[in-house]
Amino acid sequence: MKHFLNTQDWSRPDIDALLRDAANFKRHKLGDALKGRSVALVFFNPSLRTRTSFELGTFQLGGHAVVLSPGKDAWPIEFDFGTVMDGEAEEHIAEVARVLGRYADLIGVRAFPKFVDWAQDREDRVLKGFAKYAGVPVINMETITHPCQELAHVLALQERFGTEDLRGKKYVLTWTYHPKALNTAVANSALTIATRMGMDVTLLCPTPDYVLDERYMGWAAQNVSENGGSLTVSHDIESAYTDADVVYAKSWGALPYFGRWQDEKPIRDQYKHFIVDEAKMALTREAAFSHCLPLRRNVKATDAVMDSPACIAIEEAENRLHVQKAIMAALIAQ
Amino acid sequence: MKHFLNTQDWSRPDIDALLRDAANFKRHKLGDALKGRSVALVFFNPSLRTRTSFELGTFQLGGHAVVLSPGKDAWPIEFDFGTVMDGEAEEHIAEVARVLGRYADLIGVRAFPKFVDWAQDREDRVLKGFAKYAGVPVINMETITHPCQELAHVLALQERFGTEDLRGKKYVLTWTYHPKALNTAVANSALTIATRMGMDVTLLCPTPDYVLDERYMGWAAQNVSENGGSLTVSHDIESAYTDADVVYAKSWGALPYFGRWQDEKPIRDQYKHFIVDEAKMALTREAAFSHCLPLRRNVKATDAVMDSPACIAIEEAENRLHVQKAIMAALIAQ
Amino acid sequence: MKHFLNTQDWSRPDIDALLRDAANFKRHKLGDALKGRSVALVFFNPSLRTRTSFELGTFQLGGHAVVLSPGKDAWPIEFDFGTVMDGEAEEHIAEVARVLGRYADLIGVRAFPKFVDWAQDREDRVLKGFAKYAGVPVINMETITHPCQELAHVLALQERFGTEDLRGKKYVLTWTYHPKALNTAVANSALTIATRMGMDVTLLCPTPDYVLDERYMGWAAQNVSENGGSLTVSHDIESAYTDADVVYAKSWGALPYFGRWQDEKPIRDQYKHFIVDEAKMALTREAAFSHCLPLRRNVKATDAVMDSPACIAIEEAENRLHVQKAIMAALIAQ
Repeated sequence: MKHFLNTQDWSRPDIDALLRDAANFKRHKLGDALKGRSVALVFFNPSLRTRTSFELGTFQLGGHAVVLSPGKDAWPIEFDFGTVMDGEAEEHIAEVARVLGRYADLIGVRAFPKFVDWAQDREDRVLKGFAKYAGVPVINMETITHPCQELAHVLALQERFGTEDLRGKKYVLTWTYHPKALNTAVANSALTIATRMGMDVTLLCPTPDYVLDERYMGWAAQNVSENGGSLTVSHDIESAYTDADVVYAKSWGALPYFGRWQDEKPIRDQYKHFIVDEAKMALTREAAFSHCLPLRRNVKATDAVMDSPACIAIEEAENRLHVQKAIMAALIAQ
Repeated sequence: MKHFLNTQDWSRPDIDALLRDAANFKRHKLGDALKGRSVALVFFNPSLRTRTSFELGTFQLGGHAVVLSPGKDAWPIEFDFGTVMDGEAEEHIAEVARVLGRYADLIGVRAFPKFVDWAQDREDRVLKGFAKYAGVPVINMETITHPCQELAHVLALQERFGTEDLRGKKYVLTWTYHPKALNTAVANSALTIATRMGMDVTLLCPTPDYVLDERYMGWAAQNVSENGGSLTVSHDIESAYTDADVVYAKSWGALPYFGRWQDEKPIRDQYKHFIVDEAKMALTREAAFSHCLPLRRNVKATDAVMDSPACIAIEEAENRLHVQKAIMAALIAQ
Repeated sequence: MKHFLNTQDWSRPDIDALLRDAANFKRHKLGDALKGRSVALVFFNPSLRTRTSFELGTFQLGGHAVVLSPGKDAWPIEFDFGTVMDGEAEEHIAEVARVLGRYADLIGVRAFPKFVDWAQDREDRVLKGFAKYAGVPVINMETITHPCQELAHVLALQERFGTEDLRGKKYVLTWTYHPKALNTAVANSALTIATRMGMDVTLLCPTPDYVLDERYMGWAAQNVSENGGSLTVSHDIESAYTDADVVYAKSWGALPYFGRWQDEKPIRDQYKHFIVDEAKMALTREAAFSHCLPLRRNVKATDAVMDSPACIAIEEAENRLHVQKAIMAALIAQ
């Protein structure tokens, strides 16, 4: 049984098929691929966009999504084995997932990193626990990667460039400033999918401390070897932007500072000039600009960039609806 | 593109058509006016009645409503332009509304006044922000007015009196006591729609400080000039109730005390006798009594009044379902 | 009009019919018994399993469930009559229930005991208030009993034993340890339905203080006299387990300590050995083991028992979906 935990687990032809199905769903909104079927959406962290797009997508395909929002603290679940559960946890993932799998035909899970210990966060235990026990396909609605966002992003690029084939495009994933350290999920994902599509990818970030986890750097290297394109790490804004076709912005915390973010704060505060502005965009080949949203205007990107024709962030957000329908339809059909 | 932000923006024939459609939906519950369509209900303030009636109404017309409850503090949105968003707000209304407008065919918004600065509250920025950017019709689910309640109220009166034409009825909008200062939305709305229907309207309140905002007093005056009827402000309970056909009760805070409600408290506490009771109702022409609910029994109205045949509050609450279906069907059909 | 407040209010043939309908719904998931109908699910306490199974069950029968989660403190409702409501309560149950009854065809209510004063909790005022005023059938989604769980449990036993007739089975309802005192709802329910099905029931608990309320002990005695079987109270683990066909575990607080749970804590802490383990299960006639979930592994039952073929807790949880569809279909058809 196939889950949708990462795009990296899916073959390139299967990814391409999902993108084509999504484009079809964008043209023809209603369908019956989920007729009478049930989807459980489990949000350990709050969501509006993800929840809305999954819930409405399920409806448009004839199914029903039940939205479970236990909150980050409200439903303490045990993930270890053999534990005497006399602490906070009232229930073991084995029972939680098995029962939900009896009720629903698909399960979506959002579980952000706890952001204290990266070694633990990178195990992705909540998502993997559901996948192990549920007995039905599980979808990653953002944990330490965000594969639904990846496909929405690529579909928006394909629409913008009028082609499915993105090879030869210069793609810049740029760190941007945010007052707080944020998780690396979308950055990991952008790096993964951009290299997967065979683009020439530059990871632009302030210092080597902001380079992403070796797992995702490794996936990117593997993708380059398999799909062509290239991967460059850069700390130089000007050369990175020059001749770019795509600028994708995201803020994230530096992994070496995990769990002691107060020490990272003075460092990140030196890099407010990473903001995406018109001067930087002028260096590009009329690049498309995007961001996964939410975005702080005039912090991560200027009003001028956000309101320019270059910006495809709204298209990308809309595409979440379409790609998720493609994912759900593919998982239910297997 | 037409929104439903206020009844005052709609022509009288269009209002009358909505009321007739609502009466029809009350007789024939199911329909397909929203078949395959999506409605986003955004609640910045909690709701049970409004949410239930919108969600079920959407279902009964073949659509699906997604309920978003960011809570008043949970989703800090920027409404100003050009701001450097380095404070609390994570997202600008431009992106929030545009994205929701890509997912949903209609958007409902509940956003109560913040109750600190009336000059700011009366700008109704949340509702207007959604209407400006969403790209789809927006419905006011209560902000500084409550137009859905207006139509539900009028439909209940039409049912009670067995006629669409309410002209010639004496309508008393009476302030009632509540331990806390409440917002003026329903009072503004009652004044607006009662004058719109050409009734002889008395606004009964403790002192001139409790008169409503000049915008709504102005709408009422305009309505009288266009639809007949009359508008009287009274602080005398006996003359106001005498020969009334309709008594509509609501509590609200005095505008001059906005933001310093502790100073208003000793004043309002002198007017507990504004409670709607049998003695007052005996002065009327067997008036219909209503209230938008929730209602504190024996504070705003006595048990005897609430449980009497005069009370149409439950009918009015039910009518929320029917009028909202009419509003959604009209907006989607444009 | 029939409600589903307790199995004890329903005749044995009607209970048997519900169980057969549920078995049918388990084989044929979709139906139109609730086509176009609306269900309001009111959760005064949080829920994931109950909410999911009711919401999806309603969908599978063509209806729509609206989920209202006022939280335990968020919607203070008055249940007394004649009160001057100048305290916390903003609304009287009479209005709350009447309005919901205008919107929905069925109302489900979850309202746990407040756990301070058993004399008050055992009046079950929230559930009864809804049943009194709603004007539509009301379903108990767990208050001081849990009748939906009862039917799910019995259906799982019927499946395990391959027969509708459970007479002659030795059924042990065993208290188990939990670090906190829990309410008696599921224990009351298990005692009620097990005796109703004519089984030979042993209530195994640490001391006489843990015997259940006289109302449910009385129901059990009445059930034995009407349906055959027997009822035994035991504090001896070994004899209770010996030759058992069913072991049903639940933790609950001792009624004499209601409201002063800190005094009960040192007592309950002496009975951790009531855990359901392999040694105890070895005394039985290969008994089926179940629990209503959530369950703390290695506190209430060991991993070995939970993961053994004896455990039917997941089946029981799944059956919630099926029995609730049968209950809703029966109530709407009356």
